Amino acid sequence: MNGAESLILTARACGIEVCFANPGTTEMPLVTALDRVGGIRAILALFEGVCTGAADGYGRMADRPAMTLLHLGPGFANGIANLHNARRARSPLVNVVGDHATWHRGADAPLTSDIVGLAKPVSAWLRTVSAPESAASDMAAAVGAAGRALGRVATLIVPADCQWGAAKGAAAPEPSIEPMPVEPQAVAQAAALLRAAEPCALFLGGQALRARGLRAAARIAAQCACALFCETFPARVERGPDLPRLIRLPYFPEQATEALSPYQSIVIAGAPAPVAFFGYPNTPSYMIPQGRDVAVLAHPEQDAPAALEALADALAAPTGVTAAPDLERPDLPRGALTAAAAGQAIAALAPDDAIIVDEAATSGLPFFVNASGAFRHTYLALTGGAIGQGLPCATGAAVACPERKVISFQADGGAMYTLQALWTQARESLNVTTLICNNRSYRILQIELWRAGVKEPGPRALALTELDRPGLEWVQLARGMGVPGVRVESAEALVKALKRALADRGPRLIEMMMQ
Amino acid sequence: MNGAESLILTARACGIEVCFANPGTTEMPLVTALDRVGGIRAILALFEGVCTGAADGYGRMADRPAMTLLHLGPGFANGIANLHNARRARSPLVNVVGDHATWHRGADAPLTSDIVGLAKPVSAWLRTVSAPESAASDMAAAVGAAGRALGRVATLIVPADCQWGAAKGAAAPEPSIEPMPVEPQAVAQAAALLRAAEPCALFLGGQALRARGLRAAARIAAQCACALFCETFPARVERGPDLPRLIRLPYFPEQATEALSPYQSIVIAGAPAPVAFFGYPNTPSYMIPQGRDVAVLAHPEQDAPAALEALADALAAPTGVTAAPDLERPDLPRGALTAAAAGQAIAALAPDDAIIVDEAATSGLPFFVNASGAFRHTYLALTGGAIGQGLPCATGAAVACPERKVISFQADGGAMYTLQALWTQARESLNVTTLICNNRSYRILQIELWRAGVKEPGPRALALTELDRPGLEWVQLARGMGVPGVRVESAEALVKALKRALADRGPRLIEMMMQ
Repeated sequence: MNGAESLILTARACGIEVCFANPGTTEMPLVTALDRVGGIRAILALFEGVCTGAADGYGRMADRPAMTLLHLGPGFANGIANLHNARRARSPLVNVVGDHATWHRGADAPLTSDIVGLAKPVSAWLRTVSAPESAASDMAAAVGAAGRALGRVATLIVPADCQWGAAKGAAAPEPSIEPMPVEPQAVAQAAALLRAAEPCALFLGGQALRARGLRAAARIAAQCACALFCETFPARVERGPDLPRLIRLPYFPEQATEALSPYQSIVIAGAPAPVAFFGYPNTPSYMIPQGRDVAVLAHPEQDAPAALEALADALAAPTGVTAAPDLERPDLPRGALTAAAAGQAIAALAPDDAIIVDEAATSGLPFFVNASGAFRHTYLALTGGAIGQGLPCATGAAVACPERKVISFQADGGAMYTLQALWTQARESLNVTTLICNNRSYRILQIELWRAGVKEPGPRALALTELDRPGLEWVQLARGMGVPGVRVESAEALVKALKRALADRGPRLIEMMMQ
Repeated sequence: MNGAESLILTARACGIEVCFANPGTTEMPLVTALDRVGGIRAILALFEGVCTGAADGYGRMADRPAMTLLHLGPGFANGIANLHNARRARSPLVNVVGDHATWHRGADAPLTSDIVGLAKPVSAWLRTVSAPESAASDMAAAVGAAGRALGRVATLIVPADCQWGAAKGAAAPEPSIEPMPVEPQAVAQAAALLRAAEPCALFLGGQALRARGLRAAARIAAQCACALFCETFPARVERGPDLPRLIRLPYFPEQATEALSPYQSIVIAGAPAPVAFFGYPNTPSYMIPQGRDVAVLAHPEQDAPAALEALADALAAPTGVTAAPDLERPDLPRGALTAAAAGQAIAALAPDDAIIVDEAATSGLPFFVNASGAFRHTYLALTGGAIGQGLPCATGAAVACPERKVISFQADGGAMYTLQALWTQARESLNVTTLICNNRSYRILQIELWRAGVKEPGPRALALTELDRPGLEWVQLARGMGVPGVRVESAEALVKALKRALADRGPRLIEMMMQ
């Protein structure tokens, strides 16, 4: 047995079931080991950003890590943007990155680079295998460090000679990192704040947005009449008629501050205190207005659902609270194909238990409200702001949950970053319906120019924010990667196409020409 | 005037003419400044790897830097792979990367990351602007540090408040870094080696492969009957009937060592000593066989053309040596569409003064020999092994040389990494003919598996090295981005399509179904 085989055997023993890969020469022993060992599904992506984004989506839905297999520093670098998103999502994820043989590094061959330097900014855990005999225990440590539902990005660099050299066998799994425990004092402080009977709100993020946390939040809301806010870009939130309705914190800072301003007491669970996405002149970084009483019930690394349950109990909140469905499914949209119509169509037609991956940017805003309580679904957002996350994340979510329908609601600008994901969806026959919002622009940037006082952008500003001349043809792009597609130009055509796509199995693409 | 305007004004004063950009919110003041200042062409790419690869190609051809404009850490990260290639090519290049306003960094907003950490591994020069008043002088320093023909990657991080804050005006250009001077002792040593009249060779790379260096090498060869080797992956080599024929060092280490073994004396100019691209068991890192007499005439950072001229003079070599054309244009290929036929067709049909960008990988091997001395052209290779360089590099070369025809000879696997470059070619009406070698595999990896003794790869190894199921349809992909394309399946059809594409202006794509 060689180091590569001992590593893959260990990965399997640690519960790794999927490897999103784009390997090169230095990873060939690991590729061979995937066949010799068996039991791990090897999924090729034609760009590393798809591998890491898919592993993020998989981790969010499976609550255990997938592994990626990446080629040296540049291959890893291509995956960094989506590792940044995964890090913000606190997804469990193990990167395995090949390196030159240890004795070849000094030769400074063309592909030599500072892999450790590149990996450090996005890896909570980082190690380089130093001998073939330790590849197995290093992999066990990596999987343990990646954790489960509340996870981290772990990166293991494996020099080629540590793959092909002789090793002794698999290593035993190591314990997964666990969420940090609830602090009784934090529960007591939060309870005191809510008992004071001032207008109050819970600000929820991370694990607090899973069903268990939300049921506890519903109990608290029933007892204290507090508003329930959801962070703007949640990694994963469960939604449906049996779960409490959430107010999503608005994106622009002045709107976020205004939304929070009615509340004197704010209890935070599972999220950092809300901050502005960007800094603007004369605008604060922190969104909670000054003078408010704030209690942190659970930091993002703590067990927020347990904290919310402890808080509900401390408040003697009723048990068995069921949120009354506060919205019916919306009617089918008609007429112009606007962002509102797109959100309405998805909320009207998505099957129960669908997974909605939202990187629709400005075109996606109405959907969250449209779908509020209308049907049971899981909603995954762009956590780190690095666009190009949606299509890969949908790919990984579909691998994790083959029995569920994934709707990939996607802006055109971000879609172009990692469009290669469509090919992987086709090869793996994944159950993903992609809705491209073709608005022929980086609309958010045009809004930002306007906000900055540039009411009539010059030709260069237009050139850098418009996606036309030539317009992208998403049906052609999808066909080129084996995904059937259709273009729609009205709400009625969207409804028809979405019904058909959702009735099919396998990947489908609908290009929405937005108005 | 604000910091952004002072920066752009300085860039223009320093000779920056082109900005390959994919900006975001934190770069909006710079985008606005591009219009207010004027004089710099702003070219949008739909993925940052296209921006950096295009700046590399531009730098190689223009011998002065373009600037990129990138969005925070993740945007920069998407450009790292092609910055790695640019670093290996010693291309002049200035990255301008936005960052959060200085006072907003501590809020750890979603897009916050360690930009300095990400930039360091690929940047020879790296600075963060600390105040709006210094943005101009920092930009002047960046352009100076990027240099000209023998250049470097310089990265300037510009926080948003240093863009919108008040500044005083442009800064004066700073002197460019220059190649290090020739060492007379190195010239004397090399001359002594060549005078010893053992079988000898020159190993040439970097600037030695420009016309001036090659003409000096031709004089030396005429005097000493030495063989002229070219590094395997040159950043830029000039070729043609008036220039000496070069032997390209083979890719696989055993072949490289064999090619060099007849020569007792080897003089190196403009390149590092040749090393194996990868380390293999029982194979040395260094390609020059043991026991040879080696003299380094010029390190890659030195003025290799001047060193070669000094060496020719020291040897009293004849002046005015003109290489006799040693090859006629090959005949047009017929029959099966093999790698040999593709290379033959390009060598037969490329117009004089064409720029050939070669990321054709295994499909490209025959071309270099086919084109040896057949016609005048500039040849650009994948310098750092990070695939996805070809289409962006061709894009930048076409921007630098609008009057020349660019032929982008491209493997399918690498093309999928940065296919977004085709859209920029369409928008800018660039004169690029792209030839995709569709061999439906990462062929080099299949060869590597075979070399490693895996004669019958298992299903996972096949899944990770084959690009079919579904096959990519490059004509559809190109049409989706506004580039007209055609698929060919025989040598005759290739000849017909290539003639037509080369006769047109603007981007064209030919998908070659390789046999």
